[in-house]
Amino acid sequence: MLEALKEKVLKANLELPKHKLVTFTWGNVSEIDREKNLVVIKPSGVEYDEMTADDMVVVDLFTGEVVEGKLKPSSDTPTHLELYRQFPNIGGIVHTHSRHATAWAQAGEDLLALGTTHGDYFYGTIPCTRKMTPAEIAGEYELETGKVIVETFEKRNIQADQVPAVIVHSHGPFVWGKDANDAVHNSVVLEELAYMNFVTSQIRPNIQSMQQELLDKHYLRKHGANAYYGQ
Amino acid sequence: MLEALKEKVLKANLELPKHKLVTFTWGNVSEIDREKNLVVIKPSGVEYDEMTADDMVVVDLFTGEVVEGKLKPSSDTPTHLELYRQFPNIGGIVHTHSRHATAWAQAGEDLLALGTTHGDYFYGTIPCTRKMTPAEIAGEYELETGKVIVETFEKRNIQADQVPAVIVHSHGPFVWGKDANDAVHNSVVLEELAYMNFVTSQIRPNIQSMQQELLDKHYLRKHGANAYYGQ
Amino acid sequence: MLEALKEKVLKANLELPKHKLVTFTWGNVSEIDREKNLVVIKPSGVEYDEMTADDMVVVDLFTGEVVEGKLKPSSDTPTHLELYRQFPNIGGIVHTHSRHATAWAQAGEDLLALGTTHGDYFYGTIPCTRKMTPAEIAGEYELETGKVIVETFEKRNIQADQVPAVIVHSHGPFVWGKDANDAVHNSVVLEELAYMNFVTSQIRPNIQSMQQELLDKHYLRKHGANAYYGQ
Amino acid sequence: MLEALKEKVLKANLELPKHKLVTFTWGNVSEIDREKNLVVIKPSGVEYDEMTADDMVVVDLFTGEVVEGKLKPSSDTPTHLELYRQFPNIGGIVHTHSRHATAWAQAGEDLLALGTTHGDYFYGTIPCTRKMTPAEIAGEYELETGKVIVETFEKRNIQADQVPAVIVHSHGPFVWGKDANDAVHNSVVLEELAYMNFVTSQIRPNIQSMQQELLDKHYLRKHGANAYYGQ
Repeated sequence: MLEALKEKVLKANLELPKHKLVTFTWGNVSEIDREKNLVVIKPSGVEYDEMTADDMVVVDLFTGEVVEGKLKPSSDTPTHLELYRQFPNIGGIVHTHSRHATAWAQAGEDLLALGTTHGDYFYGTIPCTRKMTPAEIAGEYELETGKVIVETFEKRNIQADQVPAVIVHSHGPFVWGKDANDAVHNSVVLEELAYMNFVTSQIRPNIQSMQQELLDKHYLRKHGANAYYGQ
Repeated sequence: MLEALKEKVLKANLELPKHKLVTFTWGNVSEIDREKNLVVIKPSGVEYDEMTADDMVVVDLFTGEVVEGKLKPSSDTPTHLELYRQFPNIGGIVHTHSRHATAWAQAGEDLLALGTTHGDYFYGTIPCTRKMTPAEIAGEYELETGKVIVETFEKRNIQADQVPAVIVHSHGPFVWGKDANDAVHNSVVLEELAYMNFVTSQIRPNIQSMQQELLDKHYLRKHGANAYYGQ
Repeated sequence: MLEALKEKVLKANLELPKHKLVTFTWGNVSEIDREKNLVVIKPSGVEYDEMTADDMVVVDLFTGEVVEGKLKPSSDTPTHLELYRQFPNIGGIVHTHSRHATAWAQAGEDLLALGTTHGDYFYGTIPCTRKMTPAEIAGEYELETGKVIVETFEKRNIQADQVPAVIVHSHGPFVWGKDANDAVHNSVVLEELAYMNFVTSQIRPNIQSMQQELLDKHYLRKHGANAYYGQ
Repeated sequence: MLEALKEKVLKANLELPKHKLVTFTWGNVSEIDREKNLVVIKPSGVEYDEMTADDMVVVDLFTGEVVEGKLKPSSDTPTHLELYRQFPNIGGIVHTHSRHATAWAQAGEDLLALGTTHGDYFYGTIPCTRKMTPAEIAGEYELETGKVIVETFEKRNIQADQVPAVIVHSHGPFVWGKDANDAVHNSVVLEELAYMNFVTSQIRPNIQSMQQELLDKHYLRKHGANAYYGQ
């Protein structure tokens, strides 16, 4: 069942240690089959260098139940599912504790668009969620994490398709894309931005976002009807 | 004598340069055989790429005397022994001068729990010891180092089983676990936390610890009777 | 056509990921044939590990039209061409988003000459351009980027031959040299300087440029008629 | 002539890029034959991966003249020679522009002894020289660099045998040891210290040196008559 997708999700997971985005078993990648409403995700707490495609777990988008797989899915699965349900255009999700994105999460701060590297991929500020309430933490925590992410995008009027990442307060980044590979790609970019914004913020405290015109120019030269970057 | 344990301790020691936690001969790993009250530890000042299992030194938990081995044990052996004697549940200890944990030691500051990466492994602040007195330094220095660590956990009412690491003031980290491998694992995490806390502290000076509820959630989802992370 | 130059430009492009100056398809290198007024440049958005010499694109210095090549040239081509037209002694150009040079671009700050490493390669401050105007961004943006670079060197009376790099505000570095290899070499040095200046600025805020005499000494011992460094 | 020493100096030079202490052709290592008063040193501006033992240059300690070798010696040779002449117990010297030591040089600041890693190798503050005068720079610059180093140790009453490194203002580190290998070893430690002191200074501004008693303990447990570290 979904053998090709399992193989793809395995490979996308293995990209995380290659790009130094994860330590040990941290992090996870999933991809959704939108026709079948099934999500393939990494199992919980398994070493990257021991995982096989067969270890990937298939879960139901709506019920969260394991449809196929001998292992337990990532403990973050309910967060992934909530994002797939609420952001209908996304196809893959990555969660890591990559160092610099996580440092911003610990600081509880947004990642401002400070330059064209950011604008090439993210159309504006990458938001940091609010702190979760004790009730949310005590309840269905991982599901509530997903809900707080969705709330952040709604309240701040940010389009998930144009800003494919979030910083979860005191936790770390969730990143998405059109499929698992694209989400991994965006995760690498996010970590790069998080590092560069750290350095920039030290060189120039209280730095503000770049000009809107320049952000528009770079985002739109790579995305949408008038894009002219690439082949 | 204890051949399997020597092999295990050798391999755990060799993990330190692989994870870039040590430079040259710095650092050491030990593990205890709780039934025999014998500790196997790295020899003093030997190059990692020349060490063999046979070079590991067996010392008596109570007397500190070498029971087997042709080389002198690590000069930090009395610190290891004191921790094994006072923290009865720990099975392995690692000492390194890993860069960022050591920077916090030089600053003389605790490592606060700032995010869930910390909470997944350490149940609260990783303490920094007080400065040692001239008398302690002039006396049995390495033993006194162990005593100051124990004092720190007692006075601040921190459980060594729940916070398996300490920052020794002006020196560097000691980290433990249920065996040598677990202690190495925790050392890697500690260094990661030390780096992330450095970055966070620069982005947001005077940052405080994360919410207690979130710390509880993450620590307890991986540890204890109600853990549900992993397989 | 220009087969040897294509091979050389390919190899220079492949140096960028080796020196960790680029992520994914970011960055580009070109070199000019001054006799033919033709520029060979990397194609737009192609993976480094898939590129061949045959993928390099030949463009006309004055018209910017593709003279040979089946792929579209880098979207930054008009910037390269403007620099080749206005800086008649340069033979190769590199553009990257290397981390620390880009952080300075995001901060909108010059790279001051703080030490002899700088003075060995760059004869004084490496300037950061002004922000581009909305009209410039909305117009022929990449050409205007080149024009703003040239304006910066003219207004500040900096010689492009003596300071072979610029920081483009909110964007990243453009670096040049006598050929593509030399421009790559200078790019590596620039990134090293950008990192060291970051650290220096943190250790000592408000640091000023080094002594003019020492800058003269180091630049002139490696460049010009009285140079005595090297064989 | 001195074939074994040339081979040793070559190998020591090749350690510099391995330890990431140099970029391109930067840096140089020398060793002295104290009986013959001859110094073997790296040639000027030659690539590390092309150098052979035969390229090493033999120079006279007192006259600085090339005694054997087809290449020009490092342009820093007069600095090395002055240190060999004035510090009679040292046998090898390394000069690099290693990133963090150079950042401290650019900041013009001493490297304070902040922890036991420092104390294990350097018996107190690693000094930064004063700025050189215009006359010194205009004169025999490289020789004057050596003289300013010696002046620094004399005026501040620091023993070169106990503090085998210096930070040259606006330039970078010179490091020595009992032979070329030992000097390379100390260079690696210096760079590690420079990085850790940078991080410590950011976590805790205005940090002061560690306790004298702890410095004594660590330095003397590895050096001198009462050393007990190692085999």
